[in-house]
Amino acid sequence: MSLPSKELTRMTMQLQLDINHFLSTYWQRKPLFIKQGIANFSDLISPEEMAGLAMEEEVQSRMVMRRDDKWQAQCGPFTDFSPLESNGSTLLNQAVNHWHAPCGDLVDLFQFIPNWRFDDLMISYSTPEGGVGPHIDQYCVFIIQGQGKRHWRVGEKQDLEEFTSDQALKHCGPFQACIDVVMEPGDILYIPPGCPHEGYAVESSLNYSVGFRAPDQKELLNDFTDHLLQQDRSYTRYSDPELRAEQNYGEINAHETNKLTALLSDLVNQPDVILPFFGQHFSSSNHELDILPLAEQEQWDQASLIDALAAGEYAEKVAGLKFIYLTELTNTVFVNGQQYQVDSAALKDYQILCQGGCNQMSVLRILQG
Amino acid sequence: MSLPSKELTRMTMQLQLDINHFLSTYWQRKPLFIKQGIANFSDLISPEEMAGLAMEEEVQSRMVMRRDDKWQAQCGPFTDFSPLESNGSTLLNQAVNHWHAPCGDLVDLFQFIPNWRFDDLMISYSTPEGGVGPHIDQYCVFIIQGQGKRHWRVGEKQDLEEFTSDQALKHCGPFQACIDVVMEPGDILYIPPGCPHEGYAVESSLNYSVGFRAPDQKELLNDFTDHLLQQDRSYTRYSDPELRAEQNYGEINAHETNKLTALLSDLVNQPDVILPFFGQHFSSSNHELDILPLAEQEQWDQASLIDALAAGEYAEKVAGLKFIYLTELTNTVFVNGQQYQVDSAALKDYQILCQGGCNQMSVLRILQG
Ligand SMILES: O=C(O)CCC(=O)C(=O)O
Ligand SMILES: O=C(O)CCC(=O)C(=O)O
Ligand SMILES: [Co+2]
Ligand SMILES: [Co+2]
Repeated sequence: MSLPSKELTRMTMQLQLDINHFLSTYWQRKPLFIKQGIANFSDLISPEEMAGLAMEEEVQSRMVMRRDDKWQAQCGPFTDFSPLESNGSTLLNQAVNHWHAPCGDLVDLFQFIPNWRFDDLMISYSTPEGGVGPHIDQYCVFIIQGQGKRHWRVGEKQDLEEFTSDQALKHCGPFQACIDVVMEPGDILYIPPGCPHEGYAVESSLNYSVGFRAPDQKELLNDFTDHLLQQDRSYTRYSDPELRAEQNYGEINAHETNKLTALLSDLVNQPDVILPFFGQHFSSSNHELDILPLAEQEQWDQASLIDALAAGEYAEKVAGLKFIYLTELTNTVFVNGQQYQVDSAALKDYQILCQGGCNQMSVLRILQG
Repeated sequence: MSLPSKELTRMTMQLQLDINHFLSTYWQRKPLFIKQGIANFSDLISPEEMAGLAMEEEVQSRMVMRRDDKWQAQCGPFTDFSPLESNGSTLLNQAVNHWHAPCGDLVDLFQFIPNWRFDDLMISYSTPEGGVGPHIDQYCVFIIQGQGKRHWRVGEKQDLEEFTSDQALKHCGPFQACIDVVMEPGDILYIPPGCPHEGYAVESSLNYSVGFRAPDQKELLNDFTDHLLQQDRSYTRYSDPELRAEQNYGEINAHETNKLTALLSDLVNQPDVILPFFGQHFSSSNHELDILPLAEQEQWDQASLIDALAAGEYAEKVAGLKFIYLTELTNTVFVNGQQYQVDSAALKDYQILCQGGCNQMSVLRILQG
């Protein structure tokens, strides 16, 4: 019996980067230009495939046009790609790694950043002079130059005016650049959150953005609240048996605000409440996955799946699907927002899936469970 | 110059209760029957006025019918009150204190409980055998018997099955009573949260329920999140410059969950974020207030208001309107969810309004500001 493993089919491109040095010096701190960060880079997608994806309902796409310093942005899906016949145009597709398997391999090069931090692979195709304009992202990104050349400028973290240039287009004011470079295929730009950047194609360009998410307190709280609303459990209620008649009628005193605050604080600090939230939340994708429910006649039962795999059929993880586990939640794996209790014997096999590969022996053993 | 004060017009009914003993022994702990808690009680509203209120869009009303041990509940507004001609019927109006000034005076008897804890005065009118059935509330309540007699049973806090008998009617299973009494006008029943109770009219009855709210963690968090979504400020974003390459790809480790938890915990423990929320939240009513925007020609400017008050016109607080301040937020008063910065000279006058009265001199001085 032989099972093909994903390793065998994996692309051969390699990251040329001292990872330890990068993490301790640049990650979350400073922008970095990595000349030939991927040697012998060859594109994983074509401009025609990009247009094809942008026609799909499920793919989040945008077109940005820059004409005489006027900006215009439109959201997809698109049927008309004629703007891409003119200079100054950019087509952007989000989460291409969910829809185009080879592009997913590019993301794997960045597995030194934990999977829960990863958001998606955005790809842009720009005609000469095309770009989305100067802007600041709250997330951080590795931008890899594919075909063509693009002139990128990046500034250090700085306070800049931000304004809306067209519906879906937020720009920032002019900034001083610490990186000013014409990128060539295989060059990589690392941009931490808060650093202004702008890139304009010199020649028609493909740019691959491996993006990471970092929630702020408000987003996290909002998502936690949504999560709790779906849970069916009971919570502690405010109670004040210690109340004394001396209290002023219109006053909320410090003892009371402390008790109210503690109710909230205890909730977010309660491991059996907050840890499953983190697992579910960060194993979910912000973008649609390429999952279709199987038709009745296509349903597999456990036994036939095992037989097929044992006979050498190949199982593949849905592109972009996240397997996450928490150090503090033993025997638990989160897959795409769902929580699974895991047999301790199967734990190793699940962790292999969490590592990002799709080892066929592990899949088989888990199914045989 | 003489200004009428609310004190002069206040009703003469008094609470016959050792408040210190009540608070230290019963409040939030045990149900209590207070025989003739209000001596010489006389009704503040009539069954006809109850029906009138239940016709209004703004008043939250319910009718509950009990026919051969079948329960039926309906939400108002109502035009047909014929069910009240039969036995076993109850009409309930929420927040009557917002719509019927004399009823508001009844609430004032319970000013030894801080205003922020108060929810509303619900009044029920039941025909013989009428009641809402055995149930458990998460809030606590003083039920005052008005006209007629009603047989009430109350149990200690206990775990009981709960089920839905009709859309808006949640019941609990049979319970053992520690209080079993036929209430007469002026009798009071105090029921802490979680204690099962049921009351059936012996004669057509009016019951006045002075209810207090106590949020649970989930409600509080949900309302806090809604509050934050309306705020325009920036929050701390997750950042991990300390990331090392050793981290497992699929793992969220303890250091990371601690940091994520701290983001949430810091937010709810940040006084300048959480205190204004408490003030706004607990000065807002859960029920509509009797506030109508003034027509253009009825608008008062500051000067004319001052003149009118100085000339002896009487200013009244909108019924049910809450003035709240926090020990920890100096020079700040919250009125119906709005935050006001207060001149320290005017603080005393504002606190008089927070005490629940509507002292005309204070109103005048605040306006003269
Ligand atoms: O490819 C582009 O034009 C935009 C890339 C970018 O700004 C980003 O990935 O943050
Ligand atoms: O007046 C009624 O029928 C219901 C009163 C009650 O259950 C309450 O106030 O909690
Ligand atoms: Co960007
Ligand atoms: Co009740």
